[in-house]
Amino acid sequence: MHVLIIGAAGMVGRKLTQRLVLEGELNGTPISALTLVDVVKPDAPAEFFGRIVTRECDFSAPGEADALIGSRPDVIFHLAAIVSGEAELDFDKGYGINLDGTRYLFDAIRVANQNEGYFPRVVFTSSIAVVGAPLPFPIPDDYHLTPLTSYGTQKAMSELLLADYSRRGFFDGIGIRLPTVCIRPGKPNKAASGFFSSILREPLVGQEAALPVPDDVRHWHTSPRSAVGFLLHATGLDLSKLGWRRSLAMPGVSATVGEQIEALRRVAGEDAVKLIRREPDEMIMKMVAGWAAGFEAKRATELGFTSEKNFEEIIQVHIQDELDAKTT
Amino acid sequence: MHVLIIGAAGMVGRKLTQRLVLEGELNGTPISALTLVDVVKPDAPAEFFGRIVTRECDFSAPGEADALIGSRPDVIFHLAAIVSGEAELDFDKGYGINLDGTRYLFDAIRVANQNEGYFPRVVFTSSIAVVGAPLPFPIPDDYHLTPLTSYGTQKAMSELLLADYSRRGFFDGIGIRLPTVCIRPGKPNKAASGFFSSILREPLVGQEAALPVPDDVRHWHTSPRSAVGFLLHATGLDLSKLGWRRSLAMPGVSATVGEQIEALRRVAGEDAVKLIRREPDEMIMKMVAGWAAGFEAKRATELGFTSEKNFEEIIQVHIQDELDAKTT
Repeated sequence: MHVLIIGAAGMVGRKLTQRLVLEGELNGTPISALTLVDVVKPDAPAEFFGRIVTRECDFSAPGEADALIGSRPDVIFHLAAIVSGEAELDFDKGYGINLDGTRYLFDAIRVANQNEGYFPRVVFTSSIAVVGAPLPFPIPDDYHLTPLTSYGTQKAMSELLLADYSRRGFFDGIGIRLPTVCIRPGKPNKAASGFFSSILREPLVGQEAALPVPDDVRHWHTSPRSAVGFLLHATGLDLSKLGWRRSLAMPGVSATVGEQIEALRRVAGEDAVKLIRREPDEMIMKMVAGWAAGFEAKRATELGFTSEKNFEEIIQVHIQDELDAKTT
Repeated sequence: MHVLIIGAAGMVGRKLTQRLVLEGELNGTPISALTLVDVVKPDAPAEFFGRIVTRECDFSAPGEADALIGSRPDVIFHLAAIVSGEAELDFDKGYGINLDGTRYLFDAIRVANQNEGYFPRVVFTSSIAVVGAPLPFPIPDDYHLTPLTSYGTQKAMSELLLADYSRRGFFDGIGIRLPTVCIRPGKPNKAASGFFSSILREPLVGQEAALPVPDDVRHWHTSPRSAVGFLLHATGLDLSKLGWRRSLAMPGVSATVGEQIEALRRVAGEDAVKLIRREPDEMIMKMVAGWAAGFEAKRATELGFTSEKNFEEIIQVHIQDELDAKTT
């Protein structure tokens, strides 16, 4: 089996690569080849025994997609994206990568399908940003697409393309609407959602973190481990069960910031909690007010997708995968 | 006021043109110029006293949109589309006109907005084909986008673009999800939905018509007169009331084929009804099974959009606008 990961240098892409290399197989079939692509050349994992290709690619350039699928991968993980904040600031770049790049990829597959019957599994990472306020809580699976960012618009448009190209038989596609991934490992970044991770990640290692919103802000989370689990689970499903509604809200943990902090207190004690500094930020508060507080995720749950059940589990996953892993 | 109609040679485009020429004004402002565009050159209405330009245009060609908005129309009606059946048969043509053409238009406006503050009202005709089975009845305004055709996919993607470009302040856009327009004047055409019109239109003038589906098939209709009314009403609304949810299901008449036939009986008698020949067609039955039976259309109704209340009214509108008009 040949697996292509587009967006392999990102956080989820790296963790997905690690997991595939560790397991060495996908749904019982050995992985013989791995192609890792991103805007910067991804690192090649040393432990992989199959054929490996890593390459740098401008996903928004016409023709690049033909090269990406040149060796006809059986499974394609499409994780490439300009993130929310950047897509809002750079209109052309956002539409170029998130919409045009996706369409170039899908069209390259379509042509190969029509010419030679190529028919890969395509796993596309969408986002909860396809919906925006005012929103019910929890949000049902059949709630309409109401993005409030260009990023969310591009993800929603890509979901529609994915469904239409699947319906027409060009490939077998599934869209995974990822919750906010928490706790993101690494340094704090400038994403507006970054504080959801940093208020836990920094105190766990004795460092301060700023909290820009009130404790009653509720949001929808899953761990990096579960995010990778969703993507892997998506490769083994019989997608005919989905009909042509090919994008699914994933299960996750709906929690307020206050509940996150209580979980931190239970896991790491009062001293950790004291490292959270309250620094209200009007701009972030306003953005977060438009975000989803939680989803029913009935369809995904019925199909066997699973996430953590509460924030203590999410914190434990971080400790196991990031902190213990580094000290051993 | 300068009005541009893209898709002016189609049935709704011609009726919209007639109405604008007849009224000579839009929301109290005289119409000084009218630009009519289509893939074939639209007829110039003789009765119009302002400046009139008619032109042929390949809407899917890059650069054409710049020419279309060259004289900076205040109101743009975007009615151009490859219809459902053709978009399903000719993949490239459907995406070329319905998606790329729409994006070229919106981008041309965006550039003019950024360069010189151009800010037109854009009224876009979407379709009930943005949803597909399985569907609730009636379909609520917040039901998700589940197209089952490439045409519906292209309309749904265009709705998302319209909302994002409006949110970013490039233009003031509104999407009108038209019900099936009934009774379509003119000759029978090959659209799968054509029988909804022909089973009334032909018997009203003493001709036979074929009915390919059972009497209990329920669908969602409005008259050509109401369809034009929606488009005109959309030009005068304060769109800030819509938030960023810029596309609206329009009100209409939910009726079974049997109810259509009963209305025909009441208006034109038993002899007219006898002209309907039952000719079951499996392919049409299968297609129609995926279509919407009716919408709540709460938001549109609250905003003052109105349609007929029953099929007798729809038939009377046809008699007034098409049959009486031709005999006088």
